[in-house]
Amino acid sequence: MKKNTKGISVKKNENFSEWFSEIVQKAELADLRYNVKGFLVFQPWSVLSMEKMYDYLEKILKKKGHNPYFFPTLIPESNLKKESTHVKGFAPEVFWVSEGSDTKLSERLALRPTSETAFYQMFALWIRSYKDLPFRTYQRANVFRYDTKATRPFLRSREFHWIETHCVFATEEDAMKQVGEDIETSKEVLHDIYGLPFMIFERPAWDKFPGASRTFAADVLNPDGKVIQQPSTHLISQEFSKAFNVSFRDRDGKEKYAFMTCYGPSISRIFASVVITHGDDKGLRFPWASAPKHVTIVPIENNEELTKKAETLKREIGDFAEVVIDLDWNKTPGEKFNYWEMKGIPVRIDLGMKELKSKKLSAFRRDLNKKEIIREKELMKYLKKVSVESGENLRKEADKTFSGKIKNAKNISEMKKILEEGGIARCGFCSVEKEGVKCAEVVEKEVGAEVRGTLLDEKTRAEKCVICGKKSEKVVYVAKAY
Amino acid sequence: MKKNTKGISVKKNENFSEWFSEIVQKAELADLRYNVKGFLVFQPWSVLSMEKMYDYLEKILKKKGHNPYFFPTLIPESNLKKESTHVKGFAPEVFWVSEGSDTKLSERLALRPTSETAFYQMFALWIRSYKDLPFRTYQRANVFRYDTKATRPFLRSREFHWIETHCVFATEEDAMKQVGEDIETSKEVLHDIYGLPFMIFERPAWDKFPGASRTFAADVLNPDGKVIQQPSTHLISQEFSKAFNVSFRDRDGKEKYAFMTCYGPSISRIFASVVITHGDDKGLRFPWASAPKHVTIVPIENNEELTKKAETLKREIGDFAEVVIDLDWNKTPGEKFNYWEMKGIPVRIDLGMKELKSKKLSAFRRDLNKKEIIREKELMKYLKKVSVESGENLRKEADKTFSGKIKNAKNISEMKKILEEGGIARCGFCSVEKEGVKCAEVVEKEVGAEVRGTLLDEKTRAEKCVICGKKSEKVVYVAKAY
Repeated sequence: MKKNTKGISVKKNENFSEWFSEIVQKAELADLRYNVKGFLVFQPWSVLSMEKMYDYLEKILKKKGHNPYFFPTLIPESNLKKESTHVKGFAPEVFWVSEGSDTKLSERLALRPTSETAFYQMFALWIRSYKDLPFRTYQRANVFRYDTKATRPFLRSREFHWIETHCVFATEEDAMKQVGEDIETSKEVLHDIYGLPFMIFERPAWDKFPGASRTFAADVLNPDGKVIQQPSTHLISQEFSKAFNVSFRDRDGKEKYAFMTCYGPSISRIFASVVITHGDDKGLRFPWASAPKHVTIVPIENNEELTKKAETLKREIGDFAEVVIDLDWNKTPGEKFNYWEMKGIPVRIDLGMKELKSKKLSAFRRDLNKKEIIREKELMKYLKKVSVESGENLRKEADKTFSGKIKNAKNISEMKKILEEGGIARCGFCSVEKEGVKCAEVVEKEVGAEVRGTLLDEKTRAEKCVICGKKSEKVVYVAKAY
Repeated sequence: MKKNTKGISVKKNENFSEWFSEIVQKAELADLRYNVKGFLVFQPWSVLSMEKMYDYLEKILKKKGHNPYFFPTLIPESNLKKESTHVKGFAPEVFWVSEGSDTKLSERLALRPTSETAFYQMFALWIRSYKDLPFRTYQRANVFRYDTKATRPFLRSREFHWIETHCVFATEEDAMKQVGEDIETSKEVLHDIYGLPFMIFERPAWDKFPGASRTFAADVLNPDGKVIQQPSTHLISQEFSKAFNVSFRDRDGKEKYAFMTCYGPSISRIFASVVITHGDDKGLRFPWASAPKHVTIVPIENNEELTKKAETLKREIGDFAEVVIDLDWNKTPGEKFNYWEMKGIPVRIDLGMKELKSKKLSAFRRDLNKKEIIREKELMKYLKKVSVESGENLRKEADKTFSGKIKNAKNISEMKKILEEGGIARCGFCSVEKEGVKCAEVVEKEVGAEVRGTLLDEKTRAEKCVICGKKSEKVVYVAKAY
């Protein structure tokens, strides 16, 4: 496949939507021409990065006591129907398998939209006593949603790649501790490693996961002012353990229903946020830990000595960094520079006869868009430094962009203004229980935005609901969303 | 979940089928009680091992120039129908998605039984010139087959976990080189790392992959004398590149159809062969590289000093080996020993006050079923030694069991006898092209066995076909198969 040597034609902050479409195509992240609506082909440059995300997350989950499973992709319709809120929430989004070869199946099978109803029936078989608890699982899986909203590569597609954890506890308190741990995991991975600033909201009653009693989710803010929901974690309602009979004999000899939690980081969506948050007008930028490859070596002329030198350097740093040598002689060095900047590789080393003789290397680092001259024998030390600094720099830059985006709105016109400027509005709200839904509908209709929820550790106070003017019970955050 | 402390009740060589069923259940490899026929829940002890297989294979494939993709799970029916042999072969095994929510889809979508017809339509878009070739891809995926044969955990189930590679070349010669490389990969992974002895056969014309012009597959022999097909690699027929218009402009300026290959190692099935080949009457045995965990430390009494010591040892070896400390005080030390032997952990360290004082450790290694006393400060050195030797010992033992299983059959009664004794029969055969199918049917009917194919480097000669007595064109191998 011919590498696309043309750069991004629009500025990220002027036309974010077009910028994102171009970068998906030109950096070869995904091909949208697959002939099933809402499905796409993930190409190596995104897959290599997503594989690293899977690795990190799975390692962290294992360390925190989760055991890995592979559950079937197919879930019988009767399982989905066992818990009424859940089926109401998911049934409109299910792809159904109804035939095997030419035979109509006796029961329709769902392509899993999420796997609670698969895991819970096994939990009922596996869990007997309080000694079996806590019971923590996860699986790496792809899930399917027949989503009728407009699909968008990585952000919203009909098949996506995620990890789902499902855990069982003896008490609600233990379950809520797990929810707290999941939120910590999101912070460790999304913010500390991938440099994504976000806020964790408890969602209002009308926006909970179908079947959850409480839902917490991370929202990342896009440059176009819309938020993207990242990992959410849920305290599952007891209706679920009752429906699936997930119970245990407690210390006191009594049979009790268990408390469950689930957590669902979507790898393809986290990747989208890395692209969106760190990318600039030249193309992608990756924190070292999520970069598909780390270093490219570009010999600037077709010359055996330079190629050999590139191979030697690659061998020397090969244990520490993933290296590509660019030997495409159909391109000028300038075209290659642009190409690798668009691809977001953290370090590019330009290799000419001058560098060979002087034993000094010219390194371009994408986090700072800056060329640095380093001594050849210090290359390894230099890369180790950049591997730490590049992530830090991108994170700091993102944190800086994000900060100041949250502003107080005392009325609906202030809210509108904040959202138009690409921010998140903070305001008083009558209720985040069912009673508040009417005011939320006003927000949606008049501002085209959503009440994203409340903070667990809210410090701001507000007297009145920004919509109805009644006494404000909660401080909520309002944003446009994907 | 309560750990099952009971051992395996039958001997592997006396009742292999029951032995395998018991080990799947008692070592908690998979739970077969999931309520969709032919689908199962893979539990942590198998998943941890399969994850390592994925890692190894993916690393090797990347090193050999394959790039990773995630393709959609769903393939439109029209894609499957484009190549007639392929659709004939797979249509009877397809699960069909025909509804999304309450809407009938305009076209049925197949749950991928294999992904040629998904990859090839994209190859047609991506490949333009000889400069784009060779083009090597792979994906880690689960595939689905509505298989009407009896399912069997890990060996044959309706959803299984594999890697599929799909490659494109300018010439048939290049494509055949890839087939050779795939065979090498099978050897590196299956034999050298997982210690599985096998033979590579070119399949007869009537047993080729639907749509292939040549099929090569690895057969591993089970203790019950049946062979299991392991990775197969295929030279795809040109009918396929024509049907999908996978063509390129060659150096001479002419537009030509490309040559394709594919290779499909099934991770869940390789795991089955590791279980079957290395297991003994006590339970599982794992080569270090495929062990779910490497070391268990068993404090033999509930005593803080011992638990602390176990933690210290775990920390010391934790970078090199994956360690479990068994603190289940509901079990006697003897029950724990049996449990970990059944689970096949390579090394068990029994820790009592005697060991603590003497600064010597008692280590049980599962490859040799032997206790060894080692000095505490030499633990790391010891584990490094066992990590190499355990794989070697299991491989040698397996090779020894396998050798001598192949015997020459001059007639059908000799063939029967060889197969009854759990061997593979070698004999002359009239033809492995279409003309030979009649004799193959006789073999199937009278001996209940299959002609598995020919060796590429066959050295044996045979005058006559073992069935029809005509001049023998080929030496073939006959075995019972799953």
